[in-house]
Amino acid sequence: MKVFNFSAGPSMLPVEVMERAKKEFTNYKNSGCGIIELSHRGSEFTEVIERAEKNVRELMDIPQDYSVCFMQGGASLQFAMIPMSFLPKDSFAEYAETGHWAEAAIKQGKFFGEVKIVASSKNTNYDRIPEIRHWHPSEDAAYLHITSNNTIYGTQYHSFPEGAAPLVADMSSDIMSRIVDTGKFSLIYAGAQKNLGPSGVTLVVIKNSFAAKAAEKVPAMLKYSTYIEKKSLYNTPPTFGIYMLALVTDWMKEKGGLPAIEKINDTKSEALYEILDASSFYKCPVEPASRSKMNVVFRLPSVDLEEKFVKLAKAEGFIGLKGHRSVGGIRASIYNAMTLEGVEKLIDFMNEFESKNN
Amino acid sequence: MKVFNFSAGPSMLPVEVMERAKKEFTNYKNSGCGIIELSHRGSEFTEVIERAEKNVRELMDIPQDYSVCFMQGGASLQFAMIPMSFLPKDSFAEYAETGHWAEAAIKQGKFFGEVKIVASSKNTNYDRIPEIRHWHPSEDAAYLHITSNNTIYGTQYHSFPEGAAPLVADMSSDIMSRIVDTGKFSLIYAGAQKNLGPSGVTLVVIKNSFAAKAAEKVPAMLKYSTYIEKKSLYNTPPTFGIYMLALVTDWMKEKGGLPAIEKINDTKSEALYEILDASSFYKCPVEPASRSKMNVVFRLPSVDLEEKFVKLAKAEGFIGLKGHRSVGGIRASIYNAMTLEGVEKLIDFMNEFESKNN
Repeated sequence: MKVFNFSAGPSMLPVEVMERAKKEFTNYKNSGCGIIELSHRGSEFTEVIERAEKNVRELMDIPQDYSVCFMQGGASLQFAMIPMSFLPKDSFAEYAETGHWAEAAIKQGKFFGEVKIVASSKNTNYDRIPEIRHWHPSEDAAYLHITSNNTIYGTQYHSFPEGAAPLVADMSSDIMSRIVDTGKFSLIYAGAQKNLGPSGVTLVVIKNSFAAKAAEKVPAMLKYSTYIEKKSLYNTPPTFGIYMLALVTDWMKEKGGLPAIEKINDTKSEALYEILDASSFYKCPVEPASRSKMNVVFRLPSVDLEEKFVKLAKAEGFIGLKGHRSVGGIRASIYNAMTLEGVEKLIDFMNEFESKNN
Repeated sequence: MKVFNFSAGPSMLPVEVMERAKKEFTNYKNSGCGIIELSHRGSEFTEVIERAEKNVRELMDIPQDYSVCFMQGGASLQFAMIPMSFLPKDSFAEYAETGHWAEAAIKQGKFFGEVKIVASSKNTNYDRIPEIRHWHPSEDAAYLHITSNNTIYGTQYHSFPEGAAPLVADMSSDIMSRIVDTGKFSLIYAGAQKNLGPSGVTLVVIKNSFAAKAAEKVPAMLKYSTYIEKKSLYNTPPTFGIYMLALVTDWMKEKGGLPAIEKINDTKSEALYEILDASSFYKCPVEPASRSKMNVVFRLPSVDLEEKFVKLAKAEGFIGLKGHRSVGGIRASIYNAMTLEGVEKLIDFMNEFESKNN
C-alpha cells in the first residue's frame, strides 16, 4: 500500500531524494563506501557541504554579507545560543509569544537576560499571529525574536515586523517553503527535519555584522563565529544529515526553486482549507489570516470521531495525522515533500469520512 | 574494486549494517516510509531508541544506577557541557594532557573554572600515556578527565586511574572496542562516528549520583538531567543516527559482544604492530606500552615515501591512511568494523611496498 506521511517532523522526504540516497547508500560516487562512512575532510564530503551551502544561498537568495552554517542540537539549542551571544546584561530582547516553541525560546531567553513580550496570542489559545500593525517593538532591543510558523497551532506569519531591532526567526517548520526576503533578517535558524532533511542538522543563516556583535565569553561550540570561521567544520559535523540536505536542496532547485515550491504549497494548503471552510463537520480553529500553509490543523465534532478518523486514515495509508498531544485534534503537515496527489487523496478520504460519519 | 576504509572518522561501518540500512532505507518494517522520515514519538522510532539503549547497557554491562543518553554536538560539546555542570567556581578539575583532543577539553575546562594538569606527555610529543603510577590525582578534585584513546597520536590507556575524584572519560575513539569496567567511571562520552555509527550522535553514560551534583543554572539543552529525565527525547533527537547506532550495536551483540570484539581487535592490532616492529622501513613512534589498538600510526623513511605510500595504497583500494595533518605520517584506523581481512590485505600491501621501495 502506498503511504502518505503527514508527520509534523521528522517528516517525509521527496521520493526522488530517498531513492537516490538508497541507490548510493553503500557506494557513493564509486568510492566503494557510503558517504556516511567517509571523512568530513575528504574530497567527497567537501563537495557535499559546499554544494549544500551553495544551494541554500541560491534558493534563499542570501546576500553576500551573510554566513550559512550547519549546526547540531535543533532549534532548542538555538533558543539558548542566541541569548548567550546576543543578549547583553544591560539590554533586553523582545519575543513574540505565538505558541509552544516560542514559549520555549522565551524561557531560554529569560535564563540569560531580560525578555519583553512584544506581542502574544496566548489569551486566544494561540489561534493567530498577533496583528503586526499593533505591535510596538523597541528599536533599541538587542533583537526581536519570532517563530515564523507554529507547528502545533497551525499558524504562520504572512508578513514580518520591520524597521525595529535585528530580526531573529525560528523558521524550523516553514524554511524554504516560500519566498522570504532574507536580507530583512539578522538570523534565521531551522531544524532540518521538516523541509530540509533528517533531524540532527540545524541550518543557521546569519548576517556577519550581527554575528560580530556577539559576546566574546562563549564556549567554542556555542559560538556562531566558530561555525562561520571554520565553515561548519570546527569538529565533525553530522555528515549524513548535511548530505541529505544537499540532496533535498538539489531537488528543490530542480523543481524550480522557491517560486515554484511556494506555488504548489499554496495550491496544497488552499485545497485543504477550502474543504474545511465548506464543511460543517470539519472545523479549523485558526483565525483565517494566520493560517499555516505547512501545518493544517482541524477538529471534528467529537474526540471520539477524531480518534476514529486517525485510526481509519492510518489503515488507508495516511499516517502522522494526529494533532500534537498538547492540543488534540487533527494536523496535516504538508511540507515541501508532500505531493499535491497526497493532499488530494487526503481530501477524498476526508469527504468520504464526513459522508459516512456526519 | 573492493575498498578498505581506514579513515579515522567518520569511518567504515560493518558491511552487514550498511546492507541492512540500505535494504530498509525507503520502507522501514513495511511502514511505507524510511525510518529517517518517521516521527521521533512514533512506535517505530520508540522501539529503535529503546533497543539502542538496551544494547548499550548490555554490551557495556552498565550498572543500574547509570543513565544512557543520546546527545548531539560530538565530544567537542561535551568539553563545554562537563565543566558547565560539574566544575564549581570554588573547586578545580584535573585533566590528563595526552593529545590534541585532551588539549581541547582542557581549554574548554579552563573557560569555566580552575583546571590542573594531573599528567602530561606533551614534552615527548604525546608519544605515550603518562605512567599512571606516577600520577598524583587529588581526591577532592571535582572530577578527573582523561581521553582513553588519542586518535591523532595513536596512544591508548591500557589501565585507568583509580580511587581519586569522579572519573570522566572521552572514549570517542575506543568506545566498546574492549571490555571496560563502566562502574569505575562517573561519566563516559563518545562521538558515535568511529565505533558506533555516523557522526551527529554522542553517547553519554552517566552515573545518576554524579549527574545529581550538576550546577542548577544550566540551559535546558546543555543539562544532563534534561536528557536523563526525558530519555533523550526532550527535543527531536538525530533519529537516523540513533537508528544506525542500534544496528551497529545489534551487530556487536551478534558478533559475541565485547569479549569477542576485543579479541579480534587484539589480533588486528598485534598483526600490524608486528610488522612495524620487525621492519626497519616502517617505524612506530609510539612508546610500546601506550600503543593504540584503534589507530596504528607509523612513519616511513621519508615524507616523499609516505606520500607515495598513501597514493599507491589509495589506488589499490586502501583509503584514509594519511596521518592527521598536524603530525603527518601514516595512520591506519582499525575500529570494530574493520575486518581482519582488511588488516591482512593492508599488511600484504605494506610488505610489497617495503620490498619495492627499500
